[in-house]
This record gives sequence, C-alpha cells and structure tokens, in this order.
Amino acid sequence: MRIVRSPRAMQRLSLQWKREGKVTALVPTMGALHAGHRALLRAARRRADKVVASLFVNPAQFGPSEDLAKYPRSFAADCALCRAEGADVVFAPDAAQMYPPGSSTWVIEEALSKPLCGAQRPGHFRGVCTVVAKLFMLCQPALAFFGMKDAQQALVIARMVRDLNMPVRIVACPTVRERDGLALSSRNAYLGAAERRHAPLIREAIAGAARRLGRGEGAAQVQRRLHAALAMIPGARVDYAAIVDADTLSPPSPRRTGGALLIAVAVFLGAARLIDNERVAYR
Amino acid sequence: MRIVRSPRAMQRLSLQWKREGKVTALVPTMGALHAGHRALLRAARRRADKVVASLFVNPAQFGPSEDLAKYPRSFAADCALCRAEGADVVFAPDAAQMYPPGSSTWVIEEALSKPLCGAQRPGHFRGVCTVVAKLFMLCQPALAFFGMKDAQQALVIARMVRDLNMPVRIVACPTVRERDGLALSSRNAYLGAAERRHAPLIREAIAGAARRLGRGEGAAQVQRRLHAALAMIPGARVDYAAIVDADTLSPPSPRRTGGALLIAVAVFLGAARLIDNERVAYR
Repeated sequence: MRIVRSPRAMQRLSLQWKREGKVTALVPTMGALHAGHRALLRAARRRADKVVASLFVNPAQFGPSEDLAKYPRSFAADCALCRAEGADVVFAPDAAQMYPPGSSTWVIEEALSKPLCGAQRPGHFRGVCTVVAKLFMLCQPALAFFGMKDAQQALVIARMVRDLNMPVRIVACPTVRERDGLALSSRNAYLGAAERRHAPLIREAIAGAARRLGRGEGAAQVQRRLHAALAMIPGARVDYAAIVDADTLSPPSPRRTGGALLIAVAVFLGAARLIDNERVAYR
Repeated sequence: MRIVRSPRAMQRLSLQWKREGKVTALVPTMGALHAGHRALLRAARRRADKVVASLFVNPAQFGPSEDLAKYPRSFAADCALCRAEGADVVFAPDAAQMYPPGSSTWVIEEALSKPLCGAQRPGHFRGVCTVVAKLFMLCQPALAFFGMKDAQQALVIARMVRDLNMPVRIVACPTVRERDGLALSSRNAYLGAAERRHAPLIREAIAGAARRLGRGEGAAQVQRRLHAALAMIPGARVDYAAIVDADTLSPPSPRRTGGALLIAVAVFLGAARLIDNERVAYR
C-alpha cells in the first residue's frame, strides 16, 4: 500500500490507472477510521481494481465555532486499517496543498443542502461538495463509497455528481452500529462515560418514531414526539429532529405513493454532535 | 466527423478515448462560429488526438434581460466549419439534457468573477463555470481552448481548473480581428451598418490607452481618457472601461514589478454588447 501526500502525484497515478483501463474506487474519509469506514473499504475492494482511501480533515466543511482543531486524528492506526482492508493507496494531502492561497472556487448545491444539517451548519455542504469534487478530480474514481449515517451528505453528493455529469457512481452503504445501537462515528470519541451510556437512546428514539410511522401516525405528530423523546436524554440538546421525504428532504407529501420518509436527527450530547437517521417506506 | 447530441453518449465516447490513451482537446463554443473559433480549432487539432467542438448556447450564463433568445444560431454552417478544421466530434446537446429539472448544483468562482463583466452581469460566470465544468466531465479533455477576447473568462476558468484540481490544461489563444481591428464576436451580427463602421473605434480607444500606459501615464488618468474616448463613439454606451492587474483583475498595484496590466472594456453599440481588451506590461 502506498501513502501519497501530494495531490499532483495522486492525480498522476489515478490518470495512469485510467489509461490502463483500471476501475478505481474512492473511500473519502476524514480519518479516525472505525468499523463503518472498514465496511466502506470492503465494499470498495469487492468492486474495483484499485482502492484509494483518502484521509483529509477538510477545514472547508467546519464552521468557525466547530470542532476542526480537536477532530480526532489517528494516522498510523488509519493506515494500518486501510492496509488490512486491501487499499492500494492512502491519499493524505495537507490542507495547504488542497487549498492553496487564493483559492476562490466552490461547488454549491442549493436544494438538498438547505434543510437539516445544512440549516444548522451554514457552509458545511459547500465545503463537502468542494472537497469531494476535488478528490474526484485527483483520484478519478469510477465508484465512490459513502456511509448512510450521513444520509443528507450522500444525497447532496449524488445530486452534485448528476448535475455536474461526473463519471462517478455513488454507492451508499448501510450505517454500522455498536451492539447497543449507537451509530459509529469518529465523534463518539468525544463522549464521556455517562454520555456514552445514554447515546443509544438516540437510536431508540428514531426506532420508536419509525414504529409510529409504520402504524400510520401522522408525520407531524411523530416528529413532535421524536423531538420530545430526544430532549429527555440526559445532557442532550436537540439540534434538529425531522421527518422528511427521503429523496427531496422536503416536508413529507401526504399524497406521495412509493418512495420513503427519512427520520433524521442531530443531537448534542456533551461536546459531541451526533447524527443518525432511518428510512421508512411511505404507507 | 460525428455529431453527438446526448451527454451520456459523449461521455461514453470520451471515457473510451481516455482508456485508449488518447489526448482529447475541447473547444467549447456557443456556435455561430467565426474565424476566432476556427483558430481555436486549428490550435486544438495540432495538439490532440481527438478534437471535440461543443456547440451549446448555455442559458445559465445569460441574465434575464439578455440576448439568449436572439443569440445567433447557425448549426449547419458551424458543423461544416468544424468538419473543415478536422474536428472529430461536434457535441451539441440541448438545454433540457444539460439542465434536467431539479438541477441545483453550481460552480462558483468568487474572486476573478467579481469585477468587469462579473459586476455588470450577475450570475454570468457562475453559468460559465458550471457549464464548462459539465463539458469537461462529459468530454474529458486534457486540453481546452479559449479565446483571449474573453480575457476574464479565460482567467476565471483557469482558476476554477486550478482550484478544483481538474486535469485539464487551459490554452488561451490570441483574439482574431477583422482587418479594421474589430475583435471577432458572434454578437457582431447584431450591428447595423453604421454601428459596424463605428465599432473599430473600440479597438482604437484601447490601443490609445495602451500607448499612454507605455509612455508612463498613470493608470487612473488613462482609464478616464479611455472611458471618454469610448463614450464619444456614436451610438455607444460604455458598460465599463477599466485598467486592472492582468492576473488578479484588481486595481493596478503601483509597486508591482513584472506582470501586466489589462485594459478591458465593454461597450453597448446598438443591440450589441461588445467586449475587447489588451495586455500591457507593467513599466
């Protein structure tokens, strides 16, 4: 496995693979890898000739008061995990090379980026779209793998790829969870012991909302109960708790047939902002 | 020469060429081709294995009160010119395929896009960057050719390519002129006979400003005289007349050594908005 630091060197290699007819898969990450990333790497390994894992804590997707400085970093362990999962390259550029002085170009998505995390974290998806577009140009993947824990991110990126005609297939993989239901996230490292004990209640609240929707309760009422259930978790502050159309992220359409709803939440638990979600078929 | 209408078919072809190790050149145009485009096609033909000319009147780069509906169209003649210049493909998608319903992703450049045409035509460079990014994804060029008449456009696109790490080399080719000095433009077709007679005075005013700068006159004074000279052209309305740093498009730096100034103008002459420019070395 090669560790590539230079964007130019990464692009030279990926273009060379393309000329050789190789299919490249990209697993874009911010490092601090866990079993969720491992599942993405395994899925990538099954479907591509070359697997690139990018490790880059992207400053452009953090707000000024967010956790950029303290975001967990574990480069050696991340490389070991990538090697164990058969990655061909770890691409780990530094921020100064990714955003040289005078950088002034952004990729923005203006519909799916608006609600949920987009409403709470202005500029977040602009940073995500821009860095993913850059990683796609540098790594030239035919396939790129994202986790469904970040459901809105996967939708936004799929829309960007469609709208900009990028020759990349987006593969969204199921959320990987701890045994008690907590969705894996690098930010779980921020949880204190008591917070960690309470964190699975987020998943339980979502599961409860899913059952209510399944029984035919109205989305507005289920959303109110979901919010109340989350607010009762000790130490929790609800950032949002929403039930939306799973394709458009707009308010659910009562007349919709087919498709799905998305139950999506973001909750601060101590220093950690945790997100989770579940899709439920319209009934 | 093939005429390709479908974005999907264009991308399939360009990716196939890439796998075969072919170097593709793209000449992006809005059709209504003239000798300026011909020069771009010839430059492309000399440097690439495959030459694609795109013909697409991009609605996203026109403002609501601009000339989208009446922009000149001459598809058969354009194809004949491309064939004569050895293009391999004319890519001529329709707007509904390029911007399907629900398109919500844009590429924006926020520095070089601000002054000059960017100040007068809000959203113009957003439309340009977005369509050029899409054309690059669809045509997979290693080289793309732009005319220096649109000097700001060439700079904005070069910045986009740098910032988004697109594996494309931007080649800017000299402005082609009529014998009387008028820069070739598809929009010259809008000029009435009298306007056409007066149009070369734009070029003369710029040349006068270049001589003054060469003699060491201050940029601010030269800019005022340039504006006055343009305003005296019968039937003209000056949109802007500016002397800026040729790399940053910011006000000229008195302490700058090396580099160049750009004399850039936009003038309405009847129904035509004409632009022209000249680079002059700092002295």
